[in-house]
Order: sequence, then C-alpha cells, then structure tokens
Amino acid sequence: MNTTKSFSQAFNDTTYKLGGNGKRNIQVLIDALANIDENLASDMYGKGKLIEDFQDQMADYLGKDTAVFFPSGTMAQQIALRIWCDRKGVKRVAYHPLCHLEIHEQDGLKELHHIEPTLLADKNRLINLEDVQNMPKDIACLLLELPQREIGGQLPDYAELEAISAYCREQEIKLHLDGARLFEILPYYQKSAAEICALFDSIYVSFYKGIGGIAGAILVGDKDFTEESKVWKRRHGGDLISLYPYIISSEYYFKQRVNKMEQYYEESKELAALYNQCHGVTTMPTEPVSNMFHVHFEIPKDQLEPILTQVYETTGVGLLPYLSNSSESTCYSEVSIGDLYAEVPKDKVKIAFGRLDAELNKM
Amino acid sequence: MNTTKSFSQAFNDTTYKLGGNGKRNIQVLIDALANIDENLASDMYGKGKLIEDFQDQMADYLGKDTAVFFPSGTMAQQIALRIWCDRKGVKRVAYHPLCHLEIHEQDGLKELHHIEPTLLADKNRLINLEDVQNMPKDIACLLLELPQREIGGQLPDYAELEAISAYCREQEIKLHLDGARLFEILPYYQKSAAEICALFDSIYVSFYKGIGGIAGAILVGDKDFTEESKVWKRRHGGDLISLYPYIISSEYYFKQRVNKMEQYYEESKELAALYNQCHGVTTMPTEPVSNMFHVHFEIPKDQLEPILTQVYETTGVGLLPYLSNSSESTCYSEVSIGDLYAEVPKDKVKIAFGRLDAELNKM
Repeated sequence: MNTTKSFSQAFNDTTYKLGGNGKRNIQVLIDALANIDENLASDMYGKGKLIEDFQDQMADYLGKDTAVFFPSGTMAQQIALRIWCDRKGVKRVAYHPLCHLEIHEQDGLKELHHIEPTLLADKNRLINLEDVQNMPKDIACLLLELPQREIGGQLPDYAELEAISAYCREQEIKLHLDGARLFEILPYYQKSAAEICALFDSIYVSFYKGIGGIAGAILVGDKDFTEESKVWKRRHGGDLISLYPYIISSEYYFKQRVNKMEQYYEESKELAALYNQCHGVTTMPTEPVSNMFHVHFEIPKDQLEPILTQVYETTGVGLLPYLSNSSESTCYSEVSIGDLYAEVPKDKVKIAFGRLDAELNKM
Repeated sequence: MNTTKSFSQAFNDTTYKLGGNGKRNIQVLIDALANIDENLASDMYGKGKLIEDFQDQMADYLGKDTAVFFPSGTMAQQIALRIWCDRKGVKRVAYHPLCHLEIHEQDGLKELHHIEPTLLADKNRLINLEDVQNMPKDIACLLLELPQREIGGQLPDYAELEAISAYCREQEIKLHLDGARLFEILPYYQKSAAEICALFDSIYVSFYKGIGGIAGAILVGDKDFTEESKVWKRRHGGDLISLYPYIISSEYYFKQRVNKMEQYYEESKELAALYNQCHGVTTMPTEPVSNMFHVHFEIPKDQLEPILTQVYETTGVGLLPYLSNSSESTCYSEVSIGDLYAEVPKDKVKIAFGRLDAELNKM
C-alpha cells in the first residue's frame, strides 16, 4: 500500500481541517470578484486607478511613502536588494541561512543579480544583534524575515529588533523586511504594521499567506526606491499589462482577514498546547508568536503516517496535510492557522488529540 | 481646451470602434470563469492538472515537445535567449532594431542576463536572408518577430523564412520566434502554427494580442529547453503559486478566437483599403498580412486630433484611440482588428471615412 498517497487522501477526505483558510480552488477568485463592478477598467502596465488605489492603501497601512504591487515576493525582494546594492556600489547582502532567497529561488539573486549573501547566525536560531554587529562592513543591506518561517516562525524581542535597526542606520546598512507574514505577527508585538515598518528601509508583504489571497506582493519604501523598483519589475517580466486578478483578490482577502490575526494567534497557541501534550511531540516555538508553528515528532514519517491516517479516518479531523523527515528517526510539519480552525467543534479536536496521544504512547 | 483629453474621450464615447475586442475590464475575467467548475484546484507553482493540460494542449498545437506557461512574454523571451546563450557559451544574440527586447523591456536582457544584441537590418525594414548571412558568427540565437509589429506588422515571404531557418541550422545558430502575434499570421501564410514553428528551435506566443485574454504567454521547445526555462522562471519570480486566472482566460479566449484570425485578416485588408483611399493617408503594409497595420498621416497629431474628434462625434464611429507623431509634420497609429469590427454597420463606416477624407482634403 502506498501510505503517502493514502495519507494525503485521508487528510483531503476529512470533514474538519485544523489549518489554513480552505481549498485553493477557483472559488477563491470567484468570491473576490462577486461584488466588483464588471465595468471596472483593468490596470495597464502598472498604471490606472485599480492598481494605484491599492498601492496607496498599502503604503498608508505600512507607513511608507509609496508602494508597488508585484506578482511575487521572489521578484520584489531580489529587486529591493539589487537597488540597495546598486546605491552602495557593493554586491553583498546579509541574511539568515534559511532565507527564502537562499533556499527557494533557484539562486535568482546570484544568477540574475550577481549579489552574494553573507549568511548570519546558525540555521536553527534567529539572527541577533551580536551577529549583526559582527558581520563584515561591506554589506549593502541586511534582510530580516519576521517571523523566521523555516524555524517555526520565531521572532526576536522587539527591543532587539529596535537595536538591530539602530545599528544598521548608524552603519549606513539598509534594512529590508521579508514581511511575507507581517500581518500575522502584529498581535504578538502589539504594534501597528507602520510602527514595525518604521524600523526598516524597505518592506515586502504577501497576500497569500495568512491573508489567503491568490498571489501577489507589495513592496514599499521611499519614492526613489519604488520608482526604481518599477524599472526592475519591467526587466524581470513582472510589469504585466493586467495584474488585476491578483490585486482585486489581495484587497478582498486583506479586508476580510487582516483583523482576524489576533484570533489566529490565540488559536495557534491553543493548538500548539494540544500538540505539546502528546507523547513525543513538541512544537517550535513552544508557544507560537503568530498563526504558525512547526510540530516535531520523535518518530519518522513512515511510522507516523499510518497513525495519523487512522486518526483522520476515525475522527474526521485532519491535523496535518503532509510530513517531512527531519532525521532518520524524526519528522515534522508546519501549521498555519486560518479561518478553518474556528469552524471545528472543540470536542472533535479533543477526541482527535486523545487518539493521537494514545497511539503515540504505544510506540 | 485640452485636445488630447477630448480626443481620447471622444473615442471612448463612440458607439462603434473599429479595432480590438472591446474594453479591458473585469468582465473579461468574469466571462472566462463563467463555465469553470468552482471546485477546480489551482495550479501550484507550475504543477497540477490545470496548468499541465493547457501546456500540453499548446505544445501540441505548436508542434513541439513541451510548453511552459509564463506570466509574460518579456520573461519567457529573455529566458529563451539566456538558455541558448548558455548552451553555446556565447553572450550574444541577433534581432531587429525594433525588437520588443530592445525597446520595451528596460534592457532586461542586458541588465539581468548580460547578453548583448547585434541589431540586424535597418529599423524600417524586415530582416532578410542577406542580413542573416552577413551577421557575425559568434551569435547564439537569432530572434525573428513575425509579424514585425513596430513596422506595421510586416512579414517576409515564407520561402525567405525557410532559407533563414536552413541557414541557421547549418551554422548551428538557434532560431527563436517572437510569436506574440503568431495566430494572426496563419491565414496569410496558409500554414499551420506547427508548420511555422518547425522552422524554429523555440517559440513564444501571447494570449492578450489577437486572442484578447488578460495576460500570459507560452514558451515551447524540446524538453531539456523547457525544463531549464522553469528554473529561470523561478529565478525571475514568475513561478507563482497560482497562475490560473491567466491560464483559464488564455484557454477560454484561445478557443473563442483562434479560428477567427482569417476573418480579422480579411477585415484588416478591407479597413486598410478605406484608409488608403483618404487624402494624405497610407497604411503600412499597404495590404496587411495579418489583423494589424499602421496608418500614417501627412499631418501632425495636433492637426489631426480635432478632425478625428469631429468624425467620432458626428458619426459615432471611433477609428483610432490615439495618435503618435512620427515627425514634425506627420503622425501615425496602430490598428489591430478583433471582434468589434464585424459589429459595426458598413454604412456607418462608409460615412465616417467619407467625412475624414472630406476634412483631410481641406488641409
């Protein structure tokens, strides 16, 4: 029996799923279009009311002069780093070893922009002030990702963030925020997006993480910076004649979910506590600081999958859609809380975790 | 009075418009989604039935092994040239001086890929076999654009195209087709898309020119080539989690319009003849070879705009949406025939051209 296939199928077949905002299907776009005037004109190569209004709205929300809508964060962030490198005449930036640009972009930063990164900190922990103080001086820009997704969505203390920002300003090193999950961390920091963004020179945010849109990103900064980013957007092939399917859906789901981040954060802590009560299970962070966390199991994927499959089939509750081995004897998965969690009856959740713990205790 | 504004407004206010497929508004997307199952799953980072089916369909139609869907032609074509350059270890390509990559992409090819172009032919004429035979030998790829948009959409004889292709094969120079308007030239050549594509190593086609979709492009070639193009697509930031709004609309409008190109071509010849009958007006080409042509006027834009405005207001027929000066004393515009032309009553067209000619005769 192919357990991977049956595991994935068992998850899909569950009535209740604990993570996410629901299926990524065409309905997501149809819903976003439902109340849009069909006569609304398309944006045209980055111009027009449709795109400019949303850019203005996001610049305002993030507390910067200007914003540019991009089809992807990959494009937006490479361009941000390129601009800061060109300004300083230095082809070097610094970021975390598990930065999106380092592990998910086929080395676009190096291959297209010939920018070399200095990797700060050990991959299993956050970048701290000391790492920043000790980095080489020929750095054009430091990129911080908040929260650091690949280690479970961890965050530095706000005071440390402020100290890093102050140090970079003093050293004339630009500070860029990978804010793919910026909205998701506001409840923990108890800060506005604009307050956090004030610590940075440029910021990218995403609309298909916690916001649950289709795709799309916003890059903000001062006007010189964003105008230059539009030139690079054209060069990258991202200045499409029409980006409106992404803009409309970004705006729609932003309005729908940006004020639910506090709820997701509370639910994330609740769910992590349930995992931590199970035998041989820990979450990273132990107490989440956003809507996301990682779950680590002290057994490998091929032993855990049949257990979870049984839990899914007997309780109708889908805990995790996939597992990845982290060593020969351990595995993990990622949880991001969205709209679905609140729809699951608490007693169903309790039964599912009861069964999971019972099975893990037998191992 | 601001004549530019009133000219543009006068065009927009006309009942009948002679070019295009209609307004670029949200309705274009709504129509494309009308018969799609809302449970259809999104493509996921270039994978999934939705994107793979369309890619297979287009590879088949264009007669190549494999196809990759891109958000834009700008991205697809830079990548195609990059791959051919890397294969040959030569950072030089050849194309027309008015190639899209040379004049509309903010030098992305040079700035991102460090590829230098050799410009073939004078900008006012097509590349011919002699130009190709005389080009330097250290060329990785020759790009041909069919039709050559910036000079009115001209085409070489098919025999010349075959000779250029044979020469490039012999010289081991890759031949890439900028087929942004490939569908539009099939009636003139009386060839299938696959027959024309057989002359080329890689081909890009667009879905928002004659096809009238929202955005999106397909790049085809052999499997090694397209697999490599996917890596570069990720690097460029074009490997979006969801491209389905563009894929669904591309497929919808492809089916709706690919078989109307013969009609557009005939209408284009009819409309060009009407322009050529007017005093001081010529079209390029004199007889169009696709759905497009340029109209050249022997008076400047600021003199022509009030005349056209009057024609639009008195007849309700919109001939040209904008004008560009080509010298101090001449101006021109571009026409692309789409669905709208067939909806305009012939007598209205006749009256409009009668008035235009009468006014031009007074000059």
